[in-house]
Amino acid sequence: MSKYDVIVLGSGPGGYVTAIRASQLGLKTAVVEKESLGGVCLNWGCIPTKALLKSAQVFDYLKHAEDYGLTVKEYDKDFTKVVERSRGVADGMSKGVQFLMKKNKIDVLNGFGKLKTGKKIDVDGKEYSADHIVIATGARSRELPNLPQDGKKVIGYREAMTLKKQPKSMIVVGSGAIGVEFAHFYNSMGTDVTIVEFLPNLVPLEDIDVSKQFEKSFKKSGIKVMTKSSVEKVDTSGKLVKATVKTAKGEEVIEAEIVLSAVGIVTNIEGIGLEDVGIVTDKGKIMVNDWYQTNIPGYYAIGDVTPGPALAHVASAEGITCVEKIAGVHAEAIDYGNIPGCTYATPEIASVGMTEQQAKDAGYELKVGKFPFSASGKASAAGTKDGFVKVIFDAKYGEWLGCHMIGAGVTDMIAEAVLGRKLETTGHEVLKAIHPHPTMSEAVMEAVADAYGEVIHL
Amino acid sequence: MSKYDVIVLGSGPGGYVTAIRASQLGLKTAVVEKESLGGVCLNWGCIPTKALLKSAQVFDYLKHAEDYGLTVKEYDKDFTKVVERSRGVADGMSKGVQFLMKKNKIDVLNGFGKLKTGKKIDVDGKEYSADHIVIATGARSRELPNLPQDGKKVIGYREAMTLKKQPKSMIVVGSGAIGVEFAHFYNSMGTDVTIVEFLPNLVPLEDIDVSKQFEKSFKKSGIKVMTKSSVEKVDTSGKLVKATVKTAKGEEVIEAEIVLSAVGIVTNIEGIGLEDVGIVTDKGKIMVNDWYQTNIPGYYAIGDVTPGPALAHVASAEGITCVEKIAGVHAEAIDYGNIPGCTYATPEIASVGMTEQQAKDAGYELKVGKFPFSASGKASAAGTKDGFVKVIFDAKYGEWLGCHMIGAGVTDMIAEAVLGRKLETTGHEVLKAIHPHPTMSEAVMEAVADAYGEVIHL
Repeated sequence: MSKYDVIVLGSGPGGYVTAIRASQLGLKTAVVEKESLGGVCLNWGCIPTKALLKSAQVFDYLKHAEDYGLTVKEYDKDFTKVVERSRGVADGMSKGVQFLMKKNKIDVLNGFGKLKTGKKIDVDGKEYSADHIVIATGARSRELPNLPQDGKKVIGYREAMTLKKQPKSMIVVGSGAIGVEFAHFYNSMGTDVTIVEFLPNLVPLEDIDVSKQFEKSFKKSGIKVMTKSSVEKVDTSGKLVKATVKTAKGEEVIEAEIVLSAVGIVTNIEGIGLEDVGIVTDKGKIMVNDWYQTNIPGYYAIGDVTPGPALAHVASAEGITCVEKIAGVHAEAIDYGNIPGCTYATPEIASVGMTEQQAKDAGYELKVGKFPFSASGKASAAGTKDGFVKVIFDAKYGEWLGCHMIGAGVTDMIAEAVLGRKLETTGHEVLKAIHPHPTMSEAVMEAVADAYGEVIHL
Repeated sequence: MSKYDVIVLGSGPGGYVTAIRASQLGLKTAVVEKESLGGVCLNWGCIPTKALLKSAQVFDYLKHAEDYGLTVKEYDKDFTKVVERSRGVADGMSKGVQFLMKKNKIDVLNGFGKLKTGKKIDVDGKEYSADHIVIATGARSRELPNLPQDGKKVIGYREAMTLKKQPKSMIVVGSGAIGVEFAHFYNSMGTDVTIVEFLPNLVPLEDIDVSKQFEKSFKKSGIKVMTKSSVEKVDTSGKLVKATVKTAKGEEVIEAEIVLSAVGIVTNIEGIGLEDVGIVTDKGKIMVNDWYQTNIPGYYAIGDVTPGPALAHVASAEGITCVEKIAGVHAEAIDYGNIPGCTYATPEIASVGMTEQQAKDAGYELKVGKFPFSASGKASAAGTKDGFVKVIFDAKYGEWLGCHMIGAGVTDMIAEAVLGRKLETTGHEVLKAIHPHPTMSEAVMEAVADAYGEVIHL
């Protein structure tokens, strides 16, 4: 029986990053994976969807080439090739993880891992032991009882990124990041898209101003938006799926070739031996402390299987924190109030911290600033004037409570707010950090200036 | 004679921003402008060039549409329309400044302003006075004696952005931001471009690694690069300009329709009354203290006419600082060690702080980290794998001495480093600020991790 310092169960962005950091810290490490290295994120999530969305972006440029003084006579997308490119990118990234495992001398144990008592793990009949076992099995698409996925007409994200043929019409159920990214991609490719959201707004976790701007952009791009609506049942017996949607005004039956269910995720905690070992779960999540220790010594859990936001970067950070604590180096408990979230549709959304409503509900007195890209020189030059940056400060002590962005490239701009908030910046310090001209990032400075009555370009 | 609290001479990004901030602070303000509001930056610099470069970017997407699973049969640029779009953007921005002047109740005095003693200013024969006069007359294209500009065959940036006809061939002299941006734009449009740089590297003020990567990308895109070379003379008598270039290997005569001189700028200090008032200049720059006061009380100068980097965002910040000091509010002297610089060619360049060489020369012991976009998931998905982020830390106290980026979208990513450096972040704090996945901005975190031996994806 092979003995390790650390065995990580699952090789997604939580698991493989945990393994690399563990190995860097001098721990003998193995990772267990039943499918492709990189997990959902690399193979079926973050990465391949970004590849699809890039094709959509370029396709949108073809459609609007005239706006830039260019002419395109005949153009088209080759849906199969768009999907192939996406798969190629995912495969390349997965091979990259393979390389990283080898380089960091991490053993990859292929197969289905099941936890055993005594800090052991069974991988397809072979047993391994470790001083520390980190569970990072992630999550999968959630199925609603009234929207069972058959993988053909009613599908999840996994099928949505590998369809053989572009559907003429699609109903997307759920308007979180996954839902709206696919809605944007298929709409851009020419599919007739309807998006159905149970709550009153699209991207309902975002600040209300962001949701409203997003809905406006989505409608403008031709996507049919049904909010305060839920799919009550689907009839897949005909050529088209008939979905019965309950709206504020009553029931409506809409039809489409494909229904994509994007109503969240469920954790992969079944059959991995949690019960045998006695690891406590609650509402489908593994309970852990600040250092990702479960109730059973030697067993840890990180990423989507634990409470907290189910995001790749959170899983990675949790894994790093977990093994840094094990190794006794500068571990620092994660501040869950400072986790950025990104959505890569057009327009992009990026946010961190509290929404205005959350800050109000928490009893803060606020200074709120907003700067629209329509007033940005760079945005005018680039033809990306939709969207804004909104910032929320505590009026009393000047704490930067939240930052919400919608527009072109904002997913690469939110890091400034994350770092600034981590360093407990004041608004004045953001103002006095000279932002280069002309950039979209000036909008952050200007939004802060707006909060303090010092905005220049409004 | 009208009397103001503040009169600003010049309405570029230094002048008009100064005027707005002054007005916000309750000062009765006027701005003098002899041409279009917004100065060079809005009308002939930052903004219209970014519009041209956006057309070039979209044109490059048309050329490479196949890489994204798309097909384009017939496409072309309409050079006139590309230029028209750029002019339209500039005009729109200038009208925006007009609106801002009105909104902020700032009088616009059209005409040529000349300083008089006694804190007065003559504008085309009419005299105005103010308690504070801020000189913000900016700069123009520098002419080399052996490269006189005739505005037709040998041109400056101003003509370069309004050519009636696209030249078949162009020699660009100088590889600072202006030179390389035009070189990239014209090359992308299909002009045969040669760039001539006196120093050993393109973009010679950047970190050497950035310069090298940039040169590689430029050569790959088909631009002919001549470094350690200078144009000794030009013969404009024929249909093509014959430029005699002195290279390390001897003299060479190259020909092109157009020669673009982009060898820096000279300040606009002639004829504006500096001598009459007795304001001290040195090497063509107006001497000022930390609060932009000249040697004569009541006269100030900001922006390109003063020493320090000739950048729009610096001019704006100087103007704000100047009038905040006048008004007695939270003025803070500008830290000239923390000014970002951006170049918007493909690839983009953004940097702040010391280069590795400068840091070594200053006697620091260094921790240097580098993360290539080829190892970034987002870059793979977007097809933008060229470039990297390089960070330089002081090994002893952990100060973030410099950050150098080259690649897609980096001009919107440098703000994080500027703010982090302003807040005296350590590398560890950057690492523990969770960057969203998948973004290009993760490369900042990874480069810092590399400096400290903790990089994950290398």
